[in-house]
Amino acid sequence: MKILISNDDGIDSAGISALAKELKKIGDVTVIAPRTEQSAVGHAITMKIPLRITEYFKNGDFFGYAIDGTPADCIKIGIRNILKEPPDIVLSGINCGSNTAINIIYSGTVSAAREAAIMDIPSIAVSVTDHNPKHYEYAAKFSARLTQMVVEKKLKTGTLLNVNVPDLPESEIAGVLLTQQGKSKWDDIYEERRDPYGRKYYWLTGNLIQADATLDTDQFAVRQNYVSVTPVHFDLTDYEMFESMKNWHLDKMLKQ
Amino acid sequence: MKILISNDDGIDSAGISALAKELKKIGDVTVIAPRTEQSAVGHAITMKIPLRITEYFKNGDFFGYAIDGTPADCIKIGIRNILKEPPDIVLSGINCGSNTAINIIYSGTVSAAREAAIMDIPSIAVSVTDHNPKHYEYAAKFSARLTQMVVEKKLKTGTLLNVNVPDLPESEIAGVLLTQQGKSKWDDIYEERRDPYGRKYYWLTGNLIQADATLDTDQFAVRQNYVSVTPVHFDLTDYEMFESMKNWHLDKMLKQ
Repeated sequence: MKILISNDDGIDSAGISALAKELKKIGDVTVIAPRTEQSAVGHAITMKIPLRITEYFKNGDFFGYAIDGTPADCIKIGIRNILKEPPDIVLSGINCGSNTAINIIYSGTVSAAREAAIMDIPSIAVSVTDHNPKHYEYAAKFSARLTQMVVEKKLKTGTLLNVNVPDLPESEIAGVLLTQQGKSKWDDIYEERRDPYGRKYYWLTGNLIQADATLDTDQFAVRQNYVSVTPVHFDLTDYEMFESMKNWHLDKMLKQ
Repeated sequence: MKILISNDDGIDSAGISALAKELKKIGDVTVIAPRTEQSAVGHAITMKIPLRITEYFKNGDFFGYAIDGTPADCIKIGIRNILKEPPDIVLSGINCGSNTAINIIYSGTVSAAREAAIMDIPSIAVSVTDHNPKHYEYAAKFSARLTQMVVEKKLKTGTLLNVNVPDLPESEIAGVLLTQQGKSKWDDIYEERRDPYGRKYYWLTGNLIQADATLDTDQFAVRQNYVSVTPVHFDLTDYEMFESMKNWHLDKMLKQ
């Protein structure tokens, strides 16, 4: 099994090392990841400047390819120019911090997996809930098991799995749940500060307003110490609104 | 009616001027847009560096607020810190180049509208099909009409309208169609080049593979000279896969 691993925390992160180490037990792993941290870049791609590919070493050993771009760039250039043929599966992570509810929209980790799904390659995005994780081991082990399950059971073309794992030792994990994207959102706060020259600047902070209270949502599941697995697609048409907009008679707008 | 206008081509673009000029005829317009071009940034938000807000003048007159961030940043900081209360509607554009099919994923124009939808504010993303548009006028006029329609008929919370307008004079527009996101995708090509020092670099190019052939898809509709209006949401759960994954019995994974 040929496995491509990427992330958004950068190729030097501990999370991608933990994931690669575990996945090497079940397949032929290539790591192609951003040279620097790319959190919250969403599904950005680099078009206006060229990309470079650098061989990256960890502890003196070849670890993978560093790309000076976004997670989506890594998947695109990795599959088109570095790998000789498409991988059987793509994993993205292990991210520091959960990618649940509205965060799926902002996540670079998810965008790498989504880019693979766009290329019809099955993919899994994996995050642990803490920003300074202590327990990558279980998330990595779970990722390897789920990888085998995906290869066996197959995903729909265009679907990825978004996995969030509590930052806990395996013995404290409550279970594994199939979930949906939650509705929790941020109450963005821009802190106003002044630079040394007296000019204002604004720094984004805020709190995630917990709007999810059932175990079938990703955000509530991880808060209850469950591993959350959400099937995610990129079909953005709102079909319900599409149906109701048939009564808007847009076709008559041109002649108005 | 209070109208917030943003874009991804930057506050100095001709498209945002055309849109603001037309919308000022029907409402109280505030422009809050990126200081520099932000195409293909997807739904990136700025967290690791602070933002600044600068008053921006066009031809000696105050035009709006320039933010040194992404389209999504503009909506967040614009509504939280610049406007005294949320606008009645947000418009994003007019973008140079269509945002149809897979491009909805990569689009900064759409991300500004999506950020508004996340904040429960109705929104419209508007693009013209050409990268060097000659006909912003009709797209601007259409946007104003559609804005009035949205205010009257209401959108579902969390839904935005993604509008693509052929770069044609009004007399050559074939009509207006309600559409769905098409399936057309890019065959990414990374051109390998060498810099003056002999080192390789890679530049993204490619062609959109036309996979849409019916007028109910955004991509085909604009190619047939129709204005395309697509309702877009950010509910990323793949419910079909969710149902079929109930047979995966993920709940048994922990004890394996």
